[in-house]
Amino acid sequence: MPPEPRTAIATVCLSGTLEDKLAAAAAAGFDGVELFENDLLVSPSSPADIRRRCAGLGLSIDLYQPFRDFEAVPPDVHAANLRRAAHKFDVMAQLGTDTVLVCSSVSPDAIDDDELAAEQLRALADLAQQRGMRIAYEALAWGRHVSGYEHAWRIVRRAAHPALGVCLDSFHILSKGHDPAPIRAIPGEKIFFLQLADAPRLPMDVLPWSRHHRLFPGQGDFDLTAFTGHVLAAGYRGPLSLEVFNDVYRQADPRPAAVDARRSLLALEESLGVRDLPAAPRLTGHAFAEVVTDPGAGAILASLGFARTGVHRTKPVQLWEQGEARVVVNEGGAAHGAVGALAVASTDPARSARRAEALLAPVLPRVRGPREADLASVAAPDGTQVFLCGDDWRDDFVPTGETAAGAGILGIDHVALSQPFDHFDEAALFYRSVFGLTPSPVAEFAAPFGLVRSRAVAAEEVRLTLDSALVRRGEWAPAVPEPQHVAFACADALAAAAAMRAAGAPLLTIPANYYDDLEARLDVPPGLREHSVLYDRDDHGEYLHFATALAGTRVFFEVVQRIGGYRGYGVVNAPVRMAAHRAHRRAGAPAKTAV
Amino acid sequence: MPPEPRTAIATVCLSGTLEDKLAAAAAAGFDGVELFENDLLVSPSSPADIRRRCAGLGLSIDLYQPFRDFEAVPPDVHAANLRRAAHKFDVMAQLGTDTVLVCSSVSPDAIDDDELAAEQLRALADLAQQRGMRIAYEALAWGRHVSGYEHAWRIVRRAAHPALGVCLDSFHILSKGHDPAPIRAIPGEKIFFLQLADAPRLPMDVLPWSRHHRLFPGQGDFDLTAFTGHVLAAGYRGPLSLEVFNDVYRQADPRPAAVDARRSLLALEESLGVRDLPAAPRLTGHAFAEVVTDPGAGAILASLGFARTGVHRTKPVQLWEQGEARVVVNEGGAAHGAVGALAVASTDPARSARRAEALLAPVLPRVRGPREADLASVAAPDGTQVFLCGDDWRDDFVPTGETAAGAGILGIDHVALSQPFDHFDEAALFYRSVFGLTPSPVAEFAAPFGLVRSRAVAAEEVRLTLDSALVRRGEWAPAVPEPQHVAFACADALAAAAAMRAAGAPLLTIPANYYDDLEARLDVPPGLREHSVLYDRDDHGEYLHFATALAGTRVFFEVVQRIGGYRGYGVVNAPVRMAAHRAHRRAGAPAKTAV
Repeated sequence: MPPEPRTAIATVCLSGTLEDKLAAAAAAGFDGVELFENDLLVSPSSPADIRRRCAGLGLSIDLYQPFRDFEAVPPDVHAANLRRAAHKFDVMAQLGTDTVLVCSSVSPDAIDDDELAAEQLRALADLAQQRGMRIAYEALAWGRHVSGYEHAWRIVRRAAHPALGVCLDSFHILSKGHDPAPIRAIPGEKIFFLQLADAPRLPMDVLPWSRHHRLFPGQGDFDLTAFTGHVLAAGYRGPLSLEVFNDVYRQADPRPAAVDARRSLLALEESLGVRDLPAAPRLTGHAFAEVVTDPGAGAILASLGFARTGVHRTKPVQLWEQGEARVVVNEGGAAHGAVGALAVASTDPARSARRAEALLAPVLPRVRGPREADLASVAAPDGTQVFLCGDDWRDDFVPTGETAAGAGILGIDHVALSQPFDHFDEAALFYRSVFGLTPSPVAEFAAPFGLVRSRAVAAEEVRLTLDSALVRRGEWAPAVPEPQHVAFACADALAAAAAMRAAGAPLLTIPANYYDDLEARLDVPPGLREHSVLYDRDDHGEYLHFATALAGTRVFFEVVQRIGGYRGYGVVNAPVRMAAHRAHRRAGAPAKTAV
Repeated sequence: MPPEPRTAIATVCLSGTLEDKLAAAAAAGFDGVELFENDLLVSPSSPADIRRRCAGLGLSIDLYQPFRDFEAVPPDVHAANLRRAAHKFDVMAQLGTDTVLVCSSVSPDAIDDDELAAEQLRALADLAQQRGMRIAYEALAWGRHVSGYEHAWRIVRRAAHPALGVCLDSFHILSKGHDPAPIRAIPGEKIFFLQLADAPRLPMDVLPWSRHHRLFPGQGDFDLTAFTGHVLAAGYRGPLSLEVFNDVYRQADPRPAAVDARRSLLALEESLGVRDLPAAPRLTGHAFAEVVTDPGAGAILASLGFARTGVHRTKPVQLWEQGEARVVVNEGGAAHGAVGALAVASTDPARSARRAEALLAPVLPRVRGPREADLASVAAPDGTQVFLCGDDWRDDFVPTGETAAGAGILGIDHVALSQPFDHFDEAALFYRSVFGLTPSPVAEFAAPFGLVRSRAVAAEEVRLTLDSALVRRGEWAPAVPEPQHVAFACADALAAAAAMRAAGAPLLTIPANYYDDLEARLDVPPGLREHSVLYDRDDHGEYLHFATALAGTRVFFEVVQRIGGYRGYGVVNAPVRMAAHRAHRRAGAPAKTAV
C-alpha cells in the first residue's frame, strides 16, 4: 500500500475565530491547514504567533489564500499587484508557509491573452522563488478567461517556471463536467496543491453553488475517488486538503465538524487503497431499538401484540418482543421521548467496533454489570447510541416468561431518526462509512410545518431513515424536533391494522379526503380507507403503512407492508401523517407543545 | 378612485394545517383564499365542512388547485384526465368554488400542438360549464411546450369557450423577463384569475427559484405595481391573490405572516391608486433610541461624552444626550439587553400613527402618566417598539441640569436592529410601507459564526440597518441573537476615538493584521491603526467607524464619520468587529454565553 497522504483542511470550512478553527482541526487529527486571509485579518494574533500556535498544535500551514485577480492585466495594475504580492510574501514568511494560491482572474479588466498571463505569473513566481516560495495557479469555474484546469495547466507550462505550478480543485473541475482523466498527464511535481470538495447536483449557477453548498467528500454527488485517483496517479504527493464552503458548517460547532471532515478523508483514502481500515462486517439485522419515552410506550406495544419478555438485570428498561421485532423501552420519564439507541447485529461486533473507532466515531463508555454482555457502542452525530451486537445481548435481560399474543409483526423494517439539520449530511456519511450502509438520494417535501429533507441509509437487513426540517426556527409549530419512530414489518397491513385496532391500539385516523383523491388517481387495494392505512407505489412494488399516536411527545410506532420490490418509505404520505398526529393531539391526547 | 379590489391568499403561502391557515387569513382581513389540494387532503374536515368554516370566517374560496399535466396528451390519457376532472368538480361543488387552475403541462408525454391543447381544454371547459364552473389556464415558466402567458392566451383564444380563460401569475411572467405590457390587449373578462408574487433576482433555475424563494409584493426585485397596473388596465376585476412559495413562510407562525401578506397588498393597492391611505409624513430624524440593558450602558455613554440630562417622571428610565443624539437607557436588569425602542420624529405624528394602523401595524397600548406626552407607538415585526414623536416627548423627563462634556457626537447616524431571520423580509416591507423608508439591496457576508444578511431602510434623516443570521441553529456560537447597536454620527472619528479612549471608554481593539492588509491595498488616512478605527470607501466617499464593547450582552454603541457622500454602513468590516467583540469578552468582560 502506498504511504498515507497528509491531510489538511481550509480554515474557511469551519466556524468560529481562527483560534477555534485551529484547535478543532488539530483535535480531529489533521496534519495541516489552508489559511484563509479573512481568518488572519480578524485575528488578534500576529502571523508569528499563529505560526507558533500551529506548531504547538502539530499543524503545518500548507497554503495561504490571499490572491485574486492577479494575471493578464495592464502593466500599471500588474506593478501594483506585484507590490501587493511582496507584502503578502512578508506575511507568509512570518507564518512559515511557502505556497500561495492564485485563482484565475474574474476581473473585467483581465485580458484574454495566455502569453500575457504566463508572463505575469512568471514575474510573480520569480518574486516567490527569491523568498523560497511558490505559486499554485487555479482555474476558477467562473474565471473570466481561464475556467478549466487544462487551460490553467497550459499557461503554467508556457510560463515554465520552477516556482509556478497548478492547484487542482475538485469542485471547479467536476461542477463543470470537465473530464478529470487528463490530470494524469500533468507531471505530479507540477501539481502544487489539491483541494477536495464534494457537492450535491443543484440547478443553480456555479458560483453560488460553490460558495454555499459544497460538502465533504462522500456527502455529495461527485465521484471523488475517481478524481483523486487521477491526481495520485499523476504523482501528486502533497496533502489532501478540504476546501468546503457550506452555509451549515460555517455556523456549526467546529469540533464535531472537523471530525466529520476528517472522517470523510479517511473513507476517501480507504476507497483509494491508501488507508487500511478494518473492513465493515456484514450487518444481519436490527437487534433491537431502544425508545426513551414518557410512560405509555409499553401499553402501545402491548396493543400492537407485543409481549414484555424481559427485564434488564440492572437498568430500569424492559424488553418487548413480537416475531423478530425487539424494542427496549426506557420509560425513564424523560421530558422528550425519542429513539435513544439502535442496535445492529453484526457478523463480527468486535471488528465493527474497531472500524468505528478508526473512523473517529466516539466510542461510548459502558458500565457492565455481572452476567452482562460486553456491548460496544458508538455515538452517531445526533447523539443516538448505536450498539454493535452479537447474539449475547439478550443475556442482559431476565426473562418474564410472557409470550406475545402477536398481530402479524415480523421484525423491524426500519428506524426513522429525525436529525438536527446541522447533522443531516454528517449523519449520512457516518452511517455509510462506519457501517457500510448505502445512502439513497435526498428527497424534499412540504410538510404542514415546513420543508423536510429525507434520505435513507440502508443495507439489505438494516434500514434507517434520516429526516430533517430544512428551516424550522419558530416556536409556533408543534413537535420540534420532529418525532422519531420505529417501523415494524408485517405481511398483511390491513389485517394487522384491524387486529391492532380491535386490541385498542391508538392508531391514527386518516382523513377521507386522502382516500377520495387516492381512489380518483389510482386503482388501490380495497380496505385502505376502512383501516386508515396509507398507500404508496413505485416502479418495483407497493407499500401499505399505518402509524400509532405518539407515545409521550417524540416517538411513535409504524407498521408497514412491502409488496413486491418497493424500495421507499412512504415519504409522500408523511404530510398527511404529520397532520393526523397534530389532529390526534388536539383531540385530547397529552402534548408538551401548544397545538 | 376605482373600487378597491378583493384580496385573496393561497393556502400554500402559510404554515400549519388548513384550519390554522384559514383562521390566519381571515384574521388578517383577506376576502378569500386559493385552496391548495394538499391542504385539503391532509385535513380531517370534509369539503362541505371547509365551505362552512370559510363562510363563518367571511372567506370565499376563489380558486382550487388540483390540476397538472392536463392538456395536449394522447387520447387515452385525455379520457383519464377528464374522469379525474369530474371527480375534482365534485369536490369543488362541495367546497362552493367555481374556478379551477390548470397549469401548462410539464409532462414528457405532452405534445407540442396548440390545436390539440385547445381542443382538450375546450372539452374540459364543456365539462366545467355543465357544473357552472370555469377553467383558468396558466403558463408555467417551466412548462414543456407552453411557458409564456401570450402563448397560453393564444391557446385560450383558439379554444374560444366561455368557461375557459387565462390565469396570470406575476412570477411566471417576470422571472422570465417577459414584457407584461401586452397583457393590456387581453380582454379583462378572459383573465379569470391573477396570482401575485414578488421575488429576489437569484442566479438559479426558475423552478427552484419559484418553489423556494417567492416573496410578497414589495419584498423582492420585481415591479409588481407596473405588472398589476397592466392587468387592471385590461379590465380584470377579480381578486388580487397572493401565491408565494417560500421556505421561511412555510414554517413561520401563520398569523403574523398573513398580516405581512395583507400589508403587501395594501401597499401595492396604494401604489396603484386603488387604495386611499393616510400619506406617510416626512420623518425629520431619530428623536431617541431606547436601550434595554444590564447596568453598564450609562457608564459607557458617560465615557463617550454623554450627560444624563433627564429622569423619566414615572418609569425607571433615564435620558442621555450629546448634541442631537438622545438615548433612553432602561437598565431594568433584563437578561438580554437590546434596542427596545426607537423613536422617529414626524412632521405629523398623528397621521403617521393613522397610516401605521391602516397598514396593520399593531398599535401598542400606552399607559400615560400625568404631564406625559401622548406618544403613539407601534410594534415592528421583531417586537421593537417604534414611537412616532413630535416635539413634546421630552416633557416626560425631569431635567437633571447635567450637561454633556461632549466628545464630538452630533446625533444618531443609524440604529442597527438585528432581526430574527423569519422577520427579515417582513421588516423591510414594514419600514418601507409604514414609514416610507427606502430599502437598500440585500448584502450577504461571511461572519465568524456564519453568514449574515444585511440591508438598510433609510430616508434622508432616519436610517436603520437590519441584520440577520442566515443560518444559526447551534448553541455553540456566542451572542445569539447578534447584538444590536446605536451608531452616533461625528465629524472627526479619529479625534473622537482619542478623546473617548482618554475618558476611559471601552472601545474595541482592532487587530494589526487588519491594518497591515488595509495599508497594502489602499491609501488610507493616517491614524486608523493607532485609534482602532475601521475604514471603508465606496464610489461616493469614505467611512470611518469604531465600536464600544457590549453593554451587557446584546447592545453596544458605534461612532461613525461619513466623508463625502458615502452611502453604506461599513458592512465589510462587520466580521472584524464581531471577532473583536468575542476577543473582548474572552479577555474578561462579563458574558452570558460561553466563549
